[in-house]
Amino acid sequence: MGKYLFKISTKLKDEIKDPQGQVVEKISKRLKISDEINVRVGKYYEIIIFASSLDEAKMMIKKVAENILSNPIVELYTILSFEEII
Amino acid sequence: MGKYLFKISTKLKDEIKDPQGQVVEKISKRLKISDEINVRVGKYYEIIIFASSLDEAKMMIKKVAENILSNPIVELYTILSFEEII
Repeated sequence: MGKYLFKISTKLKDEIKDPQGQVVEKISKRLKISDEINVRVGKYYEIIIFASSLDEAKMMIKKVAENILSNPIVELYTILSFEEII
Repeated sequence: MGKYLFKISTKLKDEIKDPQGQVVEKISKRLKISDEINVRVGKYYEIIIFASSLDEAKMMIKKVAENILSNPIVELYTILSFEEII
């Protein structure tokens, strides 16, 4: 059995309004950090999974991402990275 | 002025319990996707910022991350990537 670490992000599709991001933009302006800032907020996952091969691990992660982590109607998920770990 | 895209994640420090991650683990088991899975959940940000240089953009992003995006007592933030965009 191998042990694999996947880093995954989910975010709202570009055409969908992101109220959480707008809050960060407003506070950033109020704190005078930046006036010209655009923020989109999503979720971030670090998943360690045991599998007999990297291919099997990828298949499992795809199921997790599509069935549990994201709502395909409004969100996109991205596998940011993956690696075998000890 | 340059336009810069930063991708940032925040997550709970390792020693802090992550109930959201445990929910994903439970559902993954219930759906028979994987019995041996460990999940940590955080937030993910894509931030576009205008600045006169990459160094200035990095300084602004550091302020946003430390003051708005994360609670340094319980969370860690990571700049996953940055690039100049058009």
